[in-house]
Amino acid sequence: MQKIGIIGGGIRGHMYAKSLQHFPGADVRAVSDLSQATAEKTADAFGLAAYTDHRHMLQEVDLDAVIVATPDFAHRDPAVDAAERGLHLLIEKPLATTAEDAAAIEAAVRKAGVECMVGFENRWNPAVRRIREVAAAGELGQVLTQNILLSNTWYVPTEMLSWAARSSPAWFLMSHTVDVATWVNGRTVASVDARGSRGQLAARGVDTWDVVHALLTFDDGTTANLTSTWVLPDSMPSLVDFQLQAVGDRSAVQVDLHEQSVRHAAPDGLRFPGLLGDEIDGRLQGPPTWMVQHFVSCLNEGRPVGPGLRAGRAVTDVVLAVHESLATGGTVRPGTHAA
Amino acid sequence: MQKIGIIGGGIRGHMYAKSLQHFPGADVRAVSDLSQATAEKTADAFGLAAYTDHRHMLQEVDLDAVIVATPDFAHRDPAVDAAERGLHLLIEKPLATTAEDAAAIEAAVRKAGVECMVGFENRWNPAVRRIREVAAAGELGQVLTQNILLSNTWYVPTEMLSWAARSSPAWFLMSHTVDVATWVNGRTVASVDARGSRGQLAARGVDTWDVVHALLTFDDGTTANLTSTWVLPDSMPSLVDFQLQAVGDRSAVQVDLHEQSVRHAAPDGLRFPGLLGDEIDGRLQGPPTWMVQHFVSCLNEGRPVGPGLRAGRAVTDVVLAVHESLATGGTVRPGTHAA
Amino acid sequence: MQKIGIIGGGIRGHMYAKSLQHFPGADVRAVSDLSQATAEKTADAFGLAAYTDHRHMLQEVDLDAVIVATPDFAHRDPAVDAAERGLHLLIEKPLATTAEDAAAIEAAVRKAGVECMVGFENRWNPAVRRIREVAAAGELGQVLTQNILLSNTWYVPTEMLSWAARSSPAWFLMSHTVDVATWVNGRTVASVDARGSRGQLAARGVDTWDVVHALLTFDDGTTANLTSTWVLPDSMPSLVDFQLQAVGDRSAVQVDLHEQSVRHAAPDGLRFPGLLGDEIDGRLQGPPTWMVQHFVSCLNEGRPVGPGLRAGRAVTDVVLAVHESLATGGTVRPGTHAA
Amino acid sequence: MQKIGIIGGGIRGHMYAKSLQHFPGADVRAVSDLSQATAEKTADAFGLAAYTDHRHMLQEVDLDAVIVATPDFAHRDPAVDAAERGLHLLIEKPLATTAEDAAAIEAAVRKAGVECMVGFENRWNPAVRRIREVAAAGELGQVLTQNILLSNTWYVPTEMLSWAARSSPAWFLMSHTVDVATWVNGRTVASVDARGSRGQLAARGVDTWDVVHALLTFDDGTTANLTSTWVLPDSMPSLVDFQLQAVGDRSAVQVDLHEQSVRHAAPDGLRFPGLLGDEIDGRLQGPPTWMVQHFVSCLNEGRPVGPGLRAGRAVTDVVLAVHESLATGGTVRPGTHAA
Repeated sequence: MQKIGIIGGGIRGHMYAKSLQHFPGADVRAVSDLSQATAEKTADAFGLAAYTDHRHMLQEVDLDAVIVATPDFAHRDPAVDAAERGLHLLIEKPLATTAEDAAAIEAAVRKAGVECMVGFENRWNPAVRRIREVAAAGELGQVLTQNILLSNTWYVPTEMLSWAARSSPAWFLMSHTVDVATWVNGRTVASVDARGSRGQLAARGVDTWDVVHALLTFDDGTTANLTSTWVLPDSMPSLVDFQLQAVGDRSAVQVDLHEQSVRHAAPDGLRFPGLLGDEIDGRLQGPPTWMVQHFVSCLNEGRPVGPGLRAGRAVTDVVLAVHESLATGGTVRPGTHAA
Repeated sequence: MQKIGIIGGGIRGHMYAKSLQHFPGADVRAVSDLSQATAEKTADAFGLAAYTDHRHMLQEVDLDAVIVATPDFAHRDPAVDAAERGLHLLIEKPLATTAEDAAAIEAAVRKAGVECMVGFENRWNPAVRRIREVAAAGELGQVLTQNILLSNTWYVPTEMLSWAARSSPAWFLMSHTVDVATWVNGRTVASVDARGSRGQLAARGVDTWDVVHALLTFDDGTTANLTSTWVLPDSMPSLVDFQLQAVGDRSAVQVDLHEQSVRHAAPDGLRFPGLLGDEIDGRLQGPPTWMVQHFVSCLNEGRPVGPGLRAGRAVTDVVLAVHESLATGGTVRPGTHAA
Repeated sequence: MQKIGIIGGGIRGHMYAKSLQHFPGADVRAVSDLSQATAEKTADAFGLAAYTDHRHMLQEVDLDAVIVATPDFAHRDPAVDAAERGLHLLIEKPLATTAEDAAAIEAAVRKAGVECMVGFENRWNPAVRRIREVAAAGELGQVLTQNILLSNTWYVPTEMLSWAARSSPAWFLMSHTVDVATWVNGRTVASVDARGSRGQLAARGVDTWDVVHALLTFDDGTTANLTSTWVLPDSMPSLVDFQLQAVGDRSAVQVDLHEQSVRHAAPDGLRFPGLLGDEIDGRLQGPPTWMVQHFVSCLNEGRPVGPGLRAGRAVTDVVLAVHESLATGGTVRPGTHAA
Repeated sequence: MQKIGIIGGGIRGHMYAKSLQHFPGADVRAVSDLSQATAEKTADAFGLAAYTDHRHMLQEVDLDAVIVATPDFAHRDPAVDAAERGLHLLIEKPLATTAEDAAAIEAAVRKAGVECMVGFENRWNPAVRRIREVAAAGELGQVLTQNILLSNTWYVPTEMLSWAARSSPAWFLMSHTVDVATWVNGRTVASVDARGSRGQLAARGVDTWDVVHALLTFDDGTTANLTSTWVLPDSMPSLVDFQLQAVGDRSAVQVDLHEQSVRHAAPDGLRFPGLLGDEIDGRLQGPPTWMVQHFVSCLNEGRPVGPGLRAGRAVTDVVLAVHESLATGGTVRPGTHAA
């Protein structure tokens, strides 16, 4: 039985608490959030202790593991503090948004000898898993190219996330697709060329990139093409557009997660509801839920968790390279930027 | 903790055992199948006792509940025998294929006072659930019409099922869609007109209907159109085609479960893999798994199970009416045939 | 060079005039419409003479052929009058909405020895043609079943058509799909069972059927399932939904003309624009345009036109049977109703 | 009436001859091809004079215009020779595959004062036109990003084209999508970054790029992402995959031309037939047909043809930049390479 604390009580922290609510082997005890209202809302929903300072939570509550569900750029302190107390970690993707933060978390984890998992939830997405299985079974052959699009409507950066200006489509979205691309082809990113534009979101008060395109070159010389934007019209039938094509020398796969088998011509327009993530008989089912349950099961059974620090650092390095290439116009090797 | 026996150890019995393998609160103990090889295969996979006669299993093993996963037409004896021993029941759909069998099961269940659930697994299908939720929330308004197609490739009646000649596309497939149609619109079927054809399967040694179309008229005067066939080409990218459209006076929904977000251009042709039903971290996830887990959870928590006998009998009555209308060319009121 | 008059100057009459505007071998000279404004609008757009009484047009203008583009129920007088003057005919589908009208047109055409084509434009629809070609080449084998849906949003009966109450989804839409079904399978409809509902459109002042389902049984014992409704939500991304599946014993085809390769997330919602029917370099391209050009080319080259009276009468007979079955609840053989 | 000669009598030359066979105002008189068999096959099909040397054809046949349908790299001599004789030109895309060839053609055309159209047939593709219309009407607003994929199965470079090794996915496919991207957004390409891989086709004897990804940066700072490959599995249901997404600040459009409304589950696997390009009543209909008919109509009516040299040169410059960036790994400004 894992005694669990959650740091960050917003949308994701709430979802993790709900995902573990009826899950055997998990005992979620406390939640902390800088906003007292947010902390209390999630605490009240699941009968948890509420904190506004995660250090107080770590001090006062008897815990085995911590879920770090703070904004992209705010993973370091909670993760390091928890590791130093010997607690296992599930950290939301991306692991960190600076090389320094990533290094600090890694150092703390290694020193403490705790388990650390990074929340690349698409590894529990049935469509992505299916591609990975096809690839891992050798049915794709060598992966020659991938095109992956993961974008959001304006709603996400301008209404859903209060901290979008401190993130970007690359941090928030491409951290998923970089992990997917390398999980599918089993390669390492050798270099990155990125281009994009900004100005539209800035004009609405969110000063970050509107559009990011990245060309990845892998260590076997093959390439992939990643796109993430935050400027899809709000009239899109889903707030997430996720398209993937992977072409191997033996076969090819294509995934469309924008439209997930259901269309609803609602009075106010067509909607494509997501199929996973809803409650079924009062229990959430879906990728992040199965991911956090996997984390708990591994801890209970003494199995190593994963994806871990290596995947987390690799993705952070690539997304840092994307931003550096966006800024300089040059080709960037991940992990070689000044840290 | 429910001590469970499974009667019928084929594809479905095996799947139920696997679905409960790591599920807390379930203790699957035994499996029976007329084929000793089948019984032993499933028993060995999950460490169960194997029987070829379900009565011996019921006599010898200490059980709380039984899952009846025998062929369509062979539910009566296992269900009645288990009920008479005071065991709770999960019976595969359809409840029965004759009115006499349905009445006998119902009588035994009522007399014993046991719980009885009928395996309409599409009530745990995320796409169908979404439609039901939209309908139940009043967003569809009055459902004016539905078109539902559920069909299989030749493979299913000629290779997958050894007993297809004793079933039909109406029993095997339309029992699902009759339940879905009435779950979505909340109505009762007032009359049935069915037409279809046979001869193709018969020529391949499976003497049953090739194609069945049924027009349902509901108690509010609205109608629906159901089609099930067993003659889709084996070159179809999935062996199941499932399409649904429901039009209400406020909005409409459309579901395509033939193509579930993934396409695989495999060397031997395009495939549409199903997204749910695979293992995730060694655990099955998907409609029938969530259904059987729900059954166990309800028993453990003392909650009533469902869908139950009422839904089971209603569907059996409608599918009997479909066959009667196919045979006579007349309009048939469900439940009014000689029983 | 064919000298052509158009009777009915509304949406379709205008489209036909435009379709022939730059077509060699066609000389459109006049248009008549009961509404003077409508007649003049189309006449002015294409430099035609305008009439409000088609008989005056027939008397005064030197013509070789006439296009009858009046409402469904108003084909008889223009067609008979034109035939009696020895003019060739292109008559909009359906040929007529009563057996008497159909017989009167047929008699006039036969007596005059003129050519008569019925406007089943889907025979020029590339998707439908492709299916027909696959079928005609024997690639489908025997067609075992078809499911065809052709429906409109509320907009069509309540705003686009002023005369919807004098038509129905069966006359306006199913006349297309009956022709398609029989063109694809090459069979004759032996009997019809139809069910449907009304009340929604009536409540909005258009007293006709909301929903029509028809089961067709063909002379070879196979069946098809046709649905047409006029109650799709106006939030649907296209005002036409057209879905077709035909399953043969050798292969199967599926057509979705609701979504024609393009999605537009317009500010007010998702739209599926139709791909054909637009101008290309100032010239219309699309099924009805190619149909009317075919009509003119055949006349110029002395080839027989088609589909002709036989197809026109067959469809009218089936749709009459649909309405009779809707009214009586019985099985109806086309052509056997009191005429 | 335009007297027309065709240089290059293969797939495309044959298609152009057929497209003009019954088109008023066109009088196709002769065809030349280096292969006598090819020349004669097309000549015989349409009653033309056959030549193996285009210069002889130009000398001996009285012509007004010439269609250059030779392989990508072989446009210069036929185009220059025809222009010098004062003949109007329709040149297949790309205009040329070297800056020298493009300049030579341009000089000859300007000197002769003839009309010159470059065969960007997607400007007559209804789906692409629809996007262009939405964009031109201001409904997209500023185009912020585009993702365009145009790829072929192995069949095209290894079986369909004898000269694939002297072309590339960039010349053969991306010349289309560069034109589409700039036609839709109305911008000029300021710089190009391209990455890709080769080796697979080379191993099959066709030494060219397998995969090409190009990031385009436009003069307004926005970007687009183009992918073209020649290594899609032959089990894909169509030999062309064409996907486009354009996101503007007011709305967005998405096009899928891989699946064009029809699926055929043929005995040997699923096929997505193309909808346009077939004969309708013995006459081809589709983008390249409408394009060549437009060319003839413009000449007959004394209207300027287009897209012309400017578009042709712009695309050639961008695709040259793509290849240079592929080779050097650098960012390339179109038109600035050594010529």
